[in-house]
Amino acid sequence: MPRIDINCDMGESTSLHAYHIDQDLALLPWLSSINLACGFHAGDAYTMHQLTDAALSAGIAIGAHPSFHDRENFGRSNQQLSPVHVYDIIIYQLGALNAFLRVNGTRLHHVKPHGALYNMAAKDGLMADAICRAIKDFDDRLIVYGLSGSALITSAESMDLQGASEVFADRSYQDDGTLTPRSHHGALIEDEAAAIAQVLQMIQRGVVTSVTSRTIPVKADTVCIHSDGKHALAFARQIFETLQQHHIEVASA
Amino acid sequence: MPRIDINCDMGESTSLHAYHIDQDLALLPWLSSINLACGFHAGDAYTMHQLTDAALSAGIAIGAHPSFHDRENFGRSNQQLSPVHVYDIIIYQLGALNAFLRVNGTRLHHVKPHGALYNMAAKDGLMADAICRAIKDFDDRLIVYGLSGSALITSAESMDLQGASEVFADRSYQDDGTLTPRSHHGALIEDEAAAIAQVLQMIQRGVVTSVTSRTIPVKADTVCIHSDGKHALAFARQIFETLQQHHIEVASA
Amino acid sequence: MPRIDINCDMGESTSLHAYHIDQDLALLPWLSSINLACGFHAGDAYTMHQLTDAALSAGIAIGAHPSFHDRENFGRSNQQLSPVHVYDIIIYQLGALNAFLRVNGTRLHHVKPHGALYNMAAKDGLMADAICRAIKDFDDRLIVYGLSGSALITSAESMDLQGASEVFADRSYQDDGTLTPRSHHGALIEDEAAAIAQVLQMIQRGVVTSVTSRTIPVKADTVCIHSDGKHALAFARQIFETLQQHHIEVASA
Amino acid sequence: MPRIDINCDMGESTSLHAYHIDQDLALLPWLSSINLACGFHAGDAYTMHQLTDAALSAGIAIGAHPSFHDRENFGRSNQQLSPVHVYDIIIYQLGALNAFLRVNGTRLHHVKPHGALYNMAAKDGLMADAICRAIKDFDDRLIVYGLSGSALITSAESMDLQGASEVFADRSYQDDGTLTPRSHHGALIEDEAAAIAQVLQMIQRGVVTSVTSRTIPVKADTVCIHSDGKHALAFARQIFETLQQHHIEVASA
Repeated sequence: MPRIDINCDMGESTSLHAYHIDQDLALLPWLSSINLACGFHAGDAYTMHQLTDAALSAGIAIGAHPSFHDRENFGRSNQQLSPVHVYDIIIYQLGALNAFLRVNGTRLHHVKPHGALYNMAAKDGLMADAICRAIKDFDDRLIVYGLSGSALITSAESMDLQGASEVFADRSYQDDGTLTPRSHHGALIEDEAAAIAQVLQMIQRGVVTSVTSRTIPVKADTVCIHSDGKHALAFARQIFETLQQHHIEVASA
Repeated sequence: MPRIDINCDMGESTSLHAYHIDQDLALLPWLSSINLACGFHAGDAYTMHQLTDAALSAGIAIGAHPSFHDRENFGRSNQQLSPVHVYDIIIYQLGALNAFLRVNGTRLHHVKPHGALYNMAAKDGLMADAICRAIKDFDDRLIVYGLSGSALITSAESMDLQGASEVFADRSYQDDGTLTPRSHHGALIEDEAAAIAQVLQMIQRGVVTSVTSRTIPVKADTVCIHSDGKHALAFARQIFETLQQHHIEVASA
Repeated sequence: MPRIDINCDMGESTSLHAYHIDQDLALLPWLSSINLACGFHAGDAYTMHQLTDAALSAGIAIGAHPSFHDRENFGRSNQQLSPVHVYDIIIYQLGALNAFLRVNGTRLHHVKPHGALYNMAAKDGLMADAICRAIKDFDDRLIVYGLSGSALITSAESMDLQGASEVFADRSYQDDGTLTPRSHHGALIEDEAAAIAQVLQMIQRGVVTSVTSRTIPVKADTVCIHSDGKHALAFARQIFETLQQHHIEVASA
Repeated sequence: MPRIDINCDMGESTSLHAYHIDQDLALLPWLSSINLACGFHAGDAYTMHQLTDAALSAGIAIGAHPSFHDRENFGRSNQQLSPVHVYDIIIYQLGALNAFLRVNGTRLHHVKPHGALYNMAAKDGLMADAICRAIKDFDDRLIVYGLSGSALITSAESMDLQGASEVFADRSYQDDGTLTPRSHHGALIEDEAAAIAQVLQMIQRGVVTSVTSRTIPVKADTVCIHSDGKHALAFARQIFETLQQHHIEVASA
């Protein structure tokens, strides 16, 4: 039986905007793993505590969603940091979030970098190595979530860390297997049926149709669902149910 | 042989003001423990990494110096947080700093709250309990540094955590054993000889002379040295050498 | 013809959560003035620019919504600042926001402190004086929005600044004319018909019925509408239309 | 009589590290203009107020030192912002700082971008234009301080803003007239006599000797002195006195 993880970035608001936590909580039944913001681009200690507890109760795998330290730009601006600085911000954020699992007698399941850090680590081997070195030093059982085909996945596997190749339902792919940049026309797949069809194609056949209509191989261990937007909840439910109908197991990596 | 710990708050600058780290490093030979800022009032991941490594090499005990999340006021403004919020900010900061010890195969030695959090926890039993509950849940071997005679020490000991009663060389005491507030005349002892005499009196005789010249009992497990100011280094060396001359062992709690 | 201003706090999200700006924009038709966050508890330069332009186009009065510098607690934690520090944070925020009006050839209309600063200035005459001194020094034509009956209004008028007494539709009042604290039972009026009836009573009769059913005098120059919550837009429209039906003019102070 | 402005970046610490303000204040006698941090990479409202008052008393020209919003990296990390975002952060910071001059009945004299914003605007014409457009919209009498030969100076002059070409005493120059990057060997001129000789050469002869010993033309309207470092005060005094001995007037641009 084929299997896929459905992951979602969460905890990206502060404790005073409680309705955001509500949206996060409502999504939990349709997910197998969440990636929690660690306070550097979003989130705070209170949010991390609340969402950790809720995900533990729901039996959902909890990962860290570390970022450059940049709340002002929501972690979406590139930063030129030395490898040791990158190492340090990963160690800090893993420690901070893992503490909320430690007091529950458990530990983090995976790590998925956020925003500019995710994108840079997909291409920049030095940055990918700094991230994976920190992950390995902190806990070598952690799974590294990275863009399918990225330098981050390559780096993780070179260090004997387990990688999980991430694909996107609502983003189109280029001929080289990378995502079409958000600034380009056609980057987003707004038609939900098309988005779900793309996910099924990636899981069942291991390929994706690029923007130029080529068939490109892609590895799909985990698919990312977004928590924001008006239709996030309906879409999460729809993708979950469609996968079940196609006898694809939804389970964490 | 009487014994005292000499502790110092460190890492209270950012990585780009490297001269601050230099002053911290220069002080290490005259200390037995340091309290590292965890990023909430000061400090950052890079500073925490550098100072953790330096203190481990020097054989000095490393503790966390958690704070309210308030870089703007350097953690010196009171905050009215619920107990669960206080618990959460302690868990977050302990986890973040401890991670830099974990990757070195070791762990934190103690926790000393900073600024307004330290002062509020000295008097507010509910806040003291929230702090100590977080410490105990995170690692019940951690030692709690708190103002001698404070609610924080009482709370720690009620939870079977080890407390370390802190005294100050350069602050005067009131008749009730509390520090004279900084806003009052005579709060600071600027004469270095008087400051050292006060430390000796507290260690050797277990008392301090209050601002009204009364003799007040005080428990002295650890004495706080400040890292800033032009004379910080000379004073640290002087107090260390004076204690040695009086056959008082300098060692962490 | 009786008259009331309807004001709303806005710009309390960052530029990357664009849906928040959308909710703000949707509310504009039902308001006569807005209070824009200035970056200290929420908001940023981009949000301030967008909302300033939108409000200017809509002919709505624009005020500053300055706060303690505390994004972590959304400006809701009290701070013990000296009067000169309070003066300085007001000057900074007024200058920052006013700049977006200056480049459009106009200027700010009013100032309404946010959160803990609003609540402290309602009772603390020294803080109220520091705020009003800053407002007067910056631009003595600015109107000061403050809680009806507060120290802030008294201070403003003592400095020959125009005050606008603010009332709340959805908050209950105590016998002394102050708001029931949020932590108390019955602080919020959740029934919309009751909330609107309270507003009409305050405008038409100059009184409010307290939680103990007494009739208390209250001055109502401006009524605050909240921008968050699922029913914010429907409620804003309803109160606007009800006021029109009762021949009460909605216009800025 | 030849003339040069001596400028210095100031207010780059917070109000609680008062010794930093002390160093800033001590430097004032040897300067003709200062550039004040506006809170985005460093500084705060209190520091801006104190240093504004001190500089006004000393008769020194006050400029803004705006930055990307990035306290974590001290404004030294590049950011990819749209032109409207760049425009907005300049407007915000100019307004905030200018407010402290407005309450004294005066206004800002110049604008010098900080760190990564300064470096990017030296080469990126779109960013330079966004900065200059904001400056012009806010107050078209403001002088734009930029690297000699930079896109920022070109942009300013194309908008009929007055530019002031900045040179550095302690940085070496490449054959194309740009500064040797800090990461390269020989970027810093650590010998004070050589640094002062370079300044004299730039003012008196309009040239600088590059790292490959070529003679390169350079325009020198203002020379930057650094406020940090142990020898900052002695160096500032020495350069001031040397200029006087060579009958070069020190005056703001």
